[in-house]
Amino acid sequence: QGILERLDGGEIVIGDGGFVFALEKRGYVKAGPWTPEATVEHPEAVRQLHREFLRAGSNVLQTFTFYASEDKLENRGNYVAEKISCQKVNEAACDIAREVANEGDALVAGGVSQTPSYLSCKDKTEVKAAFRKQLEVFMKKNVDFLIAEYFEHVEEAVWAVEVLKESGKPVAATMCIGPEGDMHGVSPGQCAVQLVKAGASIVGVNCHFDPETSLETVRLMKEGLQAAKLKAHLMCQPLAFHTPDCGKQGFIDLPEFPFGLEPRIATRWDIQNYARKAYDIGIRYIGGCCGFEPYHIRAIAEELGPERGFLPEASEKHGNWGDNLSMHTKPWVRARARKEYWENLKPASGRPYCPCMSKPDGWGVTKGAKELMQQKEATTEQQLRELFQKKKF
Amino acid sequence: QGILERLDGGEIVIGDGGFVFALEKRGYVKAGPWTPEATVEHPEAVRQLHREFLRAGSNVLQTFTFYASEDKLENRGNYVAEKISCQKVNEAACDIAREVANEGDALVAGGVSQTPSYLSCKDKTEVKAAFRKQLEVFMKKNVDFLIAEYFEHVEEAVWAVEVLKESGKPVAATMCIGPEGDMHGVSPGQCAVQLVKAGASIVGVNCHFDPETSLETVRLMKEGLQAAKLKAHLMCQPLAFHTPDCGKQGFIDLPEFPFGLEPRIATRWDIQNYARKAYDIGIRYIGGCCGFEPYHIRAIAEELGPERGFLPEASEKHGNWGDNLSMHTKPWVRARARKEYWENLKPASGRPYCPCMSKPDGWGVTKGAKELMQQKEATTEQQLRELFQKKKF
Amino acid sequence: QGILERLDGGEIVIGDGGFVFALEKRGYVKAGPWTPEATVEHPEAVRQLHREFLRAGSNVLQTFTFYASEDKLENRGNYVAEKISCQKVNEAACDIAREVANEGDALVAGGVSQTPSYLSCKDKTEVKAAFRKQLEVFMKKNVDFLIAEYFEHVEEAVWAVEVLKESGKPVAATMCIGPEGDMHGVSPGQCAVQLVKAGASIVGVNCHFDPETSLETVRLMKEGLQAAKLKAHLMCQPLAFHTPDCGKQGFIDLPEFPFGLEPRIATRWDIQNYARKAYDIGIRYIGGCCGFEPYHIRAIAEELGPERGFLPEASEKHGNWGDNLSMHTKPWVRARARKEYWENLKPASGRPYCPCMSKPDGWGVTKGAKELMQQKEATTEQQLRELFQKKKF
Amino acid sequence: QGILERLDGGEIVIGDGGFVFALEKRGYVKAGPWTPEATVEHPEAVRQLHREFLRAGSNVLQTFTFYASEDKLENRGNYVAEKISCQKVNEAACDIAREVANEGDALVAGGVSQTPSYLSCKDKTEVKAAFRKQLEVFMKKNVDFLIAEYFEHVEEAVWAVEVLKESGKPVAATMCIGPEGDMHGVSPGQCAVQLVKAGASIVGVNCHFDPETSLETVRLMKEGLQAAKLKAHLMCQPLAFHTPDCGKQGFIDLPEFPFGLEPRIATRWDIQNYARKAYDIGIRYIGGCCGFEPYHIRAIAEELGPERGFLPEASEKHGNWGDNLSMHTKPWVRARARKEYWENLKPASGRPYCPCMSKPDGWGVTKGAKELMQQKEATTEQQLRELFQKKKF
Repeated sequence: QGILERLDGGEIVIGDGGFVFALEKRGYVKAGPWTPEATVEHPEAVRQLHREFLRAGSNVLQTFTFYASEDKLENRGNYVAEKISCQKVNEAACDIAREVANEGDALVAGGVSQTPSYLSCKDKTEVKAAFRKQLEVFMKKNVDFLIAEYFEHVEEAVWAVEVLKESGKPVAATMCIGPEGDMHGVSPGQCAVQLVKAGASIVGVNCHFDPETSLETVRLMKEGLQAAKLKAHLMCQPLAFHTPDCGKQGFIDLPEFPFGLEPRIATRWDIQNYARKAYDIGIRYIGGCCGFEPYHIRAIAEELGPERGFLPEASEKHGNWGDNLSMHTKPWVRARARKEYWENLKPASGRPYCPCMSKPDGWGVTKGAKELMQQKEATTEQQLRELFQKKKF
Repeated sequence: QGILERLDGGEIVIGDGGFVFALEKRGYVKAGPWTPEATVEHPEAVRQLHREFLRAGSNVLQTFTFYASEDKLENRGNYVAEKISCQKVNEAACDIAREVANEGDALVAGGVSQTPSYLSCKDKTEVKAAFRKQLEVFMKKNVDFLIAEYFEHVEEAVWAVEVLKESGKPVAATMCIGPEGDMHGVSPGQCAVQLVKAGASIVGVNCHFDPETSLETVRLMKEGLQAAKLKAHLMCQPLAFHTPDCGKQGFIDLPEFPFGLEPRIATRWDIQNYARKAYDIGIRYIGGCCGFEPYHIRAIAEELGPERGFLPEASEKHGNWGDNLSMHTKPWVRARARKEYWENLKPASGRPYCPCMSKPDGWGVTKGAKELMQQKEATTEQQLRELFQKKKF
Repeated sequence: QGILERLDGGEIVIGDGGFVFALEKRGYVKAGPWTPEATVEHPEAVRQLHREFLRAGSNVLQTFTFYASEDKLENRGNYVAEKISCQKVNEAACDIAREVANEGDALVAGGVSQTPSYLSCKDKTEVKAAFRKQLEVFMKKNVDFLIAEYFEHVEEAVWAVEVLKESGKPVAATMCIGPEGDMHGVSPGQCAVQLVKAGASIVGVNCHFDPETSLETVRLMKEGLQAAKLKAHLMCQPLAFHTPDCGKQGFIDLPEFPFGLEPRIATRWDIQNYARKAYDIGIRYIGGCCGFEPYHIRAIAEELGPERGFLPEASEKHGNWGDNLSMHTKPWVRARARKEYWENLKPASGRPYCPCMSKPDGWGVTKGAKELMQQKEATTEQQLRELFQKKKF
Repeated sequence: QGILERLDGGEIVIGDGGFVFALEKRGYVKAGPWTPEATVEHPEAVRQLHREFLRAGSNVLQTFTFYASEDKLENRGNYVAEKISCQKVNEAACDIAREVANEGDALVAGGVSQTPSYLSCKDKTEVKAAFRKQLEVFMKKNVDFLIAEYFEHVEEAVWAVEVLKESGKPVAATMCIGPEGDMHGVSPGQCAVQLVKAGASIVGVNCHFDPETSLETVRLMKEGLQAAKLKAHLMCQPLAFHTPDCGKQGFIDLPEFPFGLEPRIATRWDIQNYARKAYDIGIRYIGGCCGFEPYHIRAIAEELGPERGFLPEASEKHGNWGDNLSMHTKPWVRARARKEYWENLKPASGRPYCPCMSKPDGWGVTKGAKELMQQKEATTEQQLRELFQKKKF
């Protein structure tokens, strides 16, 4: 059954987790460029991660093609020992995902994301050409459906959806925005409307913000769609980091990004809480992005086990709310074998010299930026960036 | 070259990280029992983790035989679908470790750890028999050397060393204790002395405490050995969690153990700091235990790169102190591409409703326990446990 | 010069601090009732606190008549040894304030605040009668101007202003609300408009929220007045507690209220920061409420010393940004004798087992309450309270 | 009844709180010099504070003569408008204390503290002369007993006790040290022994450390006295700040000293906890030092009300464990009217950008200092200071 049949039929579809962060920690992706040449260099590592997500309950395996557009790979790829072609990276990603998907009942989704071309103000034709190049591979490899994800500007996301729709396959579209909307100030509701009008059957958000914030953004998208009398399935793939202190541009502006985010990592119980809230909002495609490890995906599958009627394979190695601790020799550890315990735990950081929140870096917090916004000298980030460069805030 | 040749020759030997925690998150180990049947059930997952550690710089691959004594597997193993024999688990562990070690220049170490038999007061003969059973596999598979690790009582650790020494292979011995010493109140210095006298060539600590605390414990061991005019190599394999609030029995008594430890996870920079301090203390076998992921091991290898003259393979995907951020489009992210930035960062938890420290559960903190200790009614944990059970504190 | 002459002439007028909290700590006011019978019982303590505020720079001494309406004193006053009449309390308050004001150049302001009568739904006539009773004393004692303060409902505040205006004296009106507006959902801007239309020459907020939040509320009031083309002076008298975690009803709902607020107390540097921001927003009547001690008022006067051209008397015992530390014997203490040091200090709580923020108690955070609001079953707190009592959230 | 009759008779004697900190906040003492010229300049302010402590339950009023030795006043006193003689300051202090003591049942204690003469290495004769000068005033004014307090070096404290004993009056002696002992490395136990041998009838600690740390120090003093078979009454007057992160020299080295200590201020419940623990250790002279406000002293008196059989006057304005909240209109505030609530509250700081603990400044934490200590180049702080100045750590 395809993605739409599943969602139309009322199924909960569980996405996978974040490849670039997980593989960075495993030693196969470089932070900064974040490009996926590992599909060619170390396919066994990519395959193993796919397998772990499948086992944890993922119904969709996304091809590991994040930032795998030609312009991006060229732009940043010079640290790769021998030049690996964009096509080869994308093809290998499809092959690996399909191989693992066939070990279970998962779908393969081909993904495109925002391009350097757009950010450097290339025109629609050029940007679309970049997406089309990746799409050709996805068609050749016959992925099950397509995802346009990680877009900060709805304009570029719409272009991506338009290209992907040329394929005739179902298209999902998620933006990396928060409740304040895209970088040009388009609200989440309006973003959702534009994406659905462009042809997306599934809309939502991914990356950049924590589960709480992302759920609020999807809720606003839902409201926007309802107001416009449009229908679409909702999707959410947030960070597995706590980021209540983010500004408009998300976790990249936090001082801890990307090498000091550990204290913010969500527990499995945080993710069960997220899965329940997502379900209650009406989201039926529930997954994760950066920071989501296999056990976080399993937490989604376990929380929604009662609704779905089954547990993932990896639950054979996991108790319900810690009940595997009920045999411990220490009575106080046995006392942790219950839901109330983990639900109410306020986990300590073990870092008494560290604060709980950070001020984000960047325009978001500079006085000058706020004033420019208020004085209407800048209404878009692009304008702000230009003013910023001129005036040196 | 064998482990002793390397250490005697002044080399820094880098250990590997914690298998049970890493594989629990990947979906292959059950928290609570923490047994290693994955070597038989999912060898590809175990192999991949070994490979990541090798690539990150590990010079030793420990067989994944933690808690793989027969009594332990029987005791807890009933959740394993079909009964897998202790021997099979241990043999598979050896084979996988050797296979990956041969992909590089690593040694294979066979490991034994504390047994339920000892804790339930079985006698020396019985406990030694359990170790001997595992040793037989290690000999058959011809591991390079042996490690007795994760012992809370020096008495049992000495028995383990005595058994392992029968093999003629080099023996390392590490205890899971802090500066207060073992559970019978034997100081770290005295523990080290007893272990060396029993035949260990390398002594130190593993697990239960954070890097800072563990380094202090090894320092006390070093002092004890010096006072006794004994020589041994020093070894440290701590948690990758911040646990300044631990009591005598370590992180198991923290309320967050084992499913809420995320905010305590060490950053790569914390680990570089640990590696440097370990080196300065004179420790030359430097690795990790629970919580150590491949990128933590890489951090050790990178910090000590200048001393060793080379970097691990996985450093091809990692910049020096974040220098891979120097090309970022945002100036404030580029500003993070330097050592001072990451060294001085106090990472926020993103959890403003959570505290920084926890009070450990258990005897360590009960008023009754303290009083009993002061009243000298109990001088060992065993006595305390008995009194505890009688009096119901 | 009267209050309006001063403000019209561009002067900065500095208010005083919070009497009930300061005198509670000194042993003269009971938390809970918070009534001011100390004016009769212990006039020397009230006089001394007035004197300290005067010395710290206060240009206005408010009569200590908070909650001194007859209904309030009767309602709660039974813990007062012998029955003290409402009139006596109010008269004594006026006398003491005037006596101390004459020691310097300060004005005396008579104050009324929200009444139990209003909250128990008495009608306009009855509520106004209560205010009129206090006003009679203020007229007899000839205070310099009048303040209607600590109102949660703009309707009652308007009634108070109407009564006070009967006197012909200038009237200031401050509400204890945050940016979300009053308890019936009237926005700060609308509150300000109604108060000015009722006759208030000075409007703003006092109590319930921290300086940051209160400044934002006054800013919204300013916007409301501008939009309505009304003119009034702006006034701010916030808490000296950090309360970023407050809900709509302010610090009373925080779990720490009123006996565990210590870790939230503002430093003098926090208050200097507040004074500067208040000035930048255009507020010219700048004071404090609960938590403000004399040294906090001095901090306002010192921060705005350059604009005002003079320092308060109490500055003879205070250096500029810690410069009195420049003679300390320890070099690292001397290093604290500068503005940058104190401006950038992030003061530690010394409480590693405590969190940074709390969830407020009460309706504000119950799921039921939020839903009722969203379902429009309740649009006012009164309705919510009724529903709350029926449905037992 | 004199101090010794009371203590010998088994009474609990309650001390007073910290004058320099309280009067600094009220505007009468300058931080840095911390000298008590307010006794002459603003006797009404000093009188009022004495009165508040008396009302809160203090059985002893200490003359406000801290740092009132001639060398200190000369050294730092040049900010005082007109030159006020040391004698005048001390005499006024005695007169004010006596006046207020006579309003109740309190004793007056004359106090001396450490001198600049000692720190600049003047000899015993000179240092003793400084103490004798203050003692002359105390004798002339006929105080009830004498306190030598705030000594970092037991040698100087012994000299002070010897001088004070010349008077024939009872002498108490407290040092501002922690469990690590005095600045020359003399342990608390040894300090206590020396002070009792010199003639002190009451020994203990004051200032520099929080209640927990100070209680531990007094406990060590008690052990020392028991080991030496000496008898003395025990006394404790700690900070009302949480300072678990202090180094050996106490809160002065914390980065927050003295203008950012607010988040560390103890609640009344913290102090009730302190009073109970002090009592349990056997301390019978229980008071406070810097940070102790009248309500903190009242908390001691209320906690020990059952043992003493009465409450202080100021308790007429205070409920037992918040029971004065039981009439509040909001049910969740009423729910705070009980002991369990306040005992278990972990109060939030409202400061999510601040840490919980600080690293102390100074020698205590510099690597150089530690090494010098370990290398035995310096065994006293004086030596360390000299080495420090030479080598510029």
